[in-house]
Amino acid sequence: MTRARFTPLIASLPSTVPFVGPETLQRDRGADFVARLGANESAFGPSPRAVEAMREADAEIWKYGDSSSHDLRHALAQKYGCPADCVIVGEGIDGLLGNLVRLTVATGDAVVTSEGAYPTFNYHVAGCGGTLHKVPYRDDHEDLAGLLRMAADCNAKLVYFANPDNPMGSWHSGASIAAALEDLPEGALLVLDEAYLEFAPAGTEVPLPLDDPRIIRLRTFSKAYGLAGARVGYALAHPDLIAAFDKVRNHFGMNRSAQIAALAALRDEEWLAKVQGKVKAARNRVGEIARENGLLPLPSATNFVAVDCRRDGEFARALLSALLEQGVFLRMPAPPPLDRCIRISCGLPAELDALAGALPKALRHVTR
Amino acid sequence: MTRARFTPLIASLPSTVPFVGPETLQRDRGADFVARLGANESAFGPSPRAVEAMREADAEIWKYGDSSSHDLRHALAQKYGCPADCVIVGEGIDGLLGNLVRLTVATGDAVVTSEGAYPTFNYHVAGCGGTLHKVPYRDDHEDLAGLLRMAADCNAKLVYFANPDNPMGSWHSGASIAAALEDLPEGALLVLDEAYLEFAPAGTEVPLPLDDPRIIRLRTFSKAYGLAGARVGYALAHPDLIAAFDKVRNHFGMNRSAQIAALAALRDEEWLAKVQGKVKAARNRVGEIARENGLLPLPSATNFVAVDCRRDGEFARALLSALLEQGVFLRMPAPPPLDRCIRISCGLPAELDALAGALPKALRHVTR
Repeated sequence: MTRARFTPLIASLPSTVPFVGPETLQRDRGADFVARLGANESAFGPSPRAVEAMREADAEIWKYGDSSSHDLRHALAQKYGCPADCVIVGEGIDGLLGNLVRLTVATGDAVVTSEGAYPTFNYHVAGCGGTLHKVPYRDDHEDLAGLLRMAADCNAKLVYFANPDNPMGSWHSGASIAAALEDLPEGALLVLDEAYLEFAPAGTEVPLPLDDPRIIRLRTFSKAYGLAGARVGYALAHPDLIAAFDKVRNHFGMNRSAQIAALAALRDEEWLAKVQGKVKAARNRVGEIARENGLLPLPSATNFVAVDCRRDGEFARALLSALLEQGVFLRMPAPPPLDRCIRISCGLPAELDALAGALPKALRHVTR
Repeated sequence: MTRARFTPLIASLPSTVPFVGPETLQRDRGADFVARLGANESAFGPSPRAVEAMREADAEIWKYGDSSSHDLRHALAQKYGCPADCVIVGEGIDGLLGNLVRLTVATGDAVVTSEGAYPTFNYHVAGCGGTLHKVPYRDDHEDLAGLLRMAADCNAKLVYFANPDNPMGSWHSGASIAAALEDLPEGALLVLDEAYLEFAPAGTEVPLPLDDPRIIRLRTFSKAYGLAGARVGYALAHPDLIAAFDKVRNHFGMNRSAQIAALAALRDEEWLAKVQGKVKAARNRVGEIARENGLLPLPSATNFVAVDCRRDGEFARALLSALLEQGVFLRMPAPPPLDRCIRISCGLPAELDALAGALPKALRHVTR
C-alpha cells in the first residue's frame, strides 16, 4: 500500500483509460494491423514541410519549448484575424479539455454532453467530480436544442458539443448553432469541439466572433494537419477565459519540435487542400465498400465514416472483433442506438483495399 | 467577460507563469542570447542516436503515441530491475508533479517544501488549493529533518525534496535520506525529485526498493539525456500509486517521437557518460570563472553551479540583469539568504567563454 493519501474524489474514481490505444491492441494481438482505421488519424501524413521543420528542430530538442508557444499562437491569431490573447496552444484538444474542466468544474457541478459523445471529455469531468447529464442523439446528430434545454434544467457550467460530430460524422450549419446559442443559459459555456472542422463543408464554422463570451472553440493539428503524435491543439475564446488557462496548465508542457512542426503545417495550405481531397475520395470509397456489403454509410463531414450495420450493437461489436482478427482496426460508438454503427477512418487506398477484402469475410463470420 | 463560471478555487488564483521562458526574455530583449545558461538544459545535446531515432519516427508523427508508453516504460523497468507497474511516463517531471498533486491535495491540505525550492511544484499545489508550509534551507542544503518535523506538525500529505537540489546544487547521501525516512509521518509521501541524479556522485541514490510505499521518485530525460524540449519524465513508485495516475493523466499526452527518442537515449550509455564528463569539466570551468571574479562557487552535484556573490539579493539580481543585457541568460534563487547566489548552467565552452567575458563588466557595472 502506498503512503499516498488520495483526495476523497480521487479515491472514488476508477483507474481507467478513455481509449485502448492501437499499440496496446497490436501487442495483445501479437501482430501489426493491416489497416489502422480506428483512431481517425491522417494516414496521408502531415505536410512534408512540417516533417522537415520538425526534423530540423530536433537538433535543438535539448532546449525547452517556448512556454507561451508564441510563434504558433501569433500565426493562428493572424490566420483568424483575432488578437493573440484569444488563442491558447496545448497538448492536444484532450489536454485543453482537461484544463478547461479543471477551471470550471468542482465536485457536484453539472455538465451536459451527448450520450455517446467524446469519452475523454467525460473522463475529465469525472476527474473533477462533475456530474454528467447526457442527452441522446437525434437522428444521428447531436441535439443542440436538447442539450441547451438540459443545460438550463441542471444549471450546467459546460455544454460539450462537437461540430462536426465524432463518432457519427454528422454536422450542423454554423448559422443554426449561432441561432441556437440565443438559448444558451446565462451561466453555461459552450465547449465547441471542432477537431474535424477542416473536413466539413463551407458554412459549418460558427459565424460569431472568436471572443464571443458564450463559446470556447477547440481545434487541433491531429486530424487534417496529420500531426496526432505531436500533440498540438489550440483553443479560441474570450481573452478572460484564455488567460485563466495559465492558472492550471503545464506551462512548459509543449514539445519544442511539435510547436515548430505545427507552424510549418499551418503555412502549407496546399498540402491541407490535398489532404482534404484525399479524405473526400476515401470517404466515397468507404461508402462504396459499405454499400457493396449491404451496409449503410452515413453522411460525414469528418475524416471517417460511421457505417450503419442495420443490426444491433451486439452484431456491430462482433463485426468489429472479426475485423480486428484480420488486422483491420476500427472503433465504434458505445451506446444504442449509435452502436448499430462501426466507425471507419479515411485511410490509405491500400488500407481500404484491405478493408474491402476483410469485410465480407467478417460479415460471413458474424452472420453464421 | 467570458461566460465561464470558474470554480471558487480557480477564481481565487492568479494567472501566472512559474518561470519566464528564455524565448520570452529574448523577444523582450530583441536579440538572441550569447550564452543560454539559465534553464539547466544540456547544451551538449542528446545522444545522436536519440536524434536519429526521433527523426525517423517523425515520418509517422500522424499516428498517436502509445498511450501507455509501453516500450519506454518496460525499458526503464528493466534498467531498474522493477516491475513495469512501478513506472509511469509523463510530460516531464512538471506534468507528473501536476498529476501527483491532483491525486493527493484538495483545498486546505497541507504540503511541505523548502523555502526557495522548485516553484512549479508550488504552482501545482496552489492550483489544487493546498497550503504550502516552507522550511528554510540549512547551510545551502534542503533540511530533510526539518521538512519531516514540519510534515508531522502540519499533517502534510506531500513532502517535496529534491536530491540533488535545485537551485543550490547541493545533495545528501542516499543512505542519510533512507535513515531520515524513519521519521516520515504515517500519512505523508516523500516526493523525491531526482531530475539531476545522473550528475551526482555515487551514493546519492536512495538505497530503498523502488516500490517503497513512502516515496515517489521523479526522473527526467530533460537534463542528462538532453531532451528537455521533448517533454519526457517518469516516476518510480509503489504500483498502487502509479496506477492512480490513470485517474487524472492525459492518456494520449505523450509525443510519439519523444517516446522513441527517450528509449534510444536510455540505451546510449556511452553518450550519457560523455555528457557527465563534459558537465564535470564545465562545472570546474564555471568555478574558475567565479573565483577569478572574486565570487564563491558552491559544490554542485548537478549540471549547474550556484555561485555565491557574497553580497545581498539586490546585488545578485542587479548582476543577473547586467549579464542579461550582455546576452548571458542566468537564473537565481528567489528568497534570502539563497538569493545571494546566481545559478549558472553547465553550457558549452564558447558559452562559458562569453560568461567569462561578460562577468567582469557586469560586476563593474553593478558595483559602480
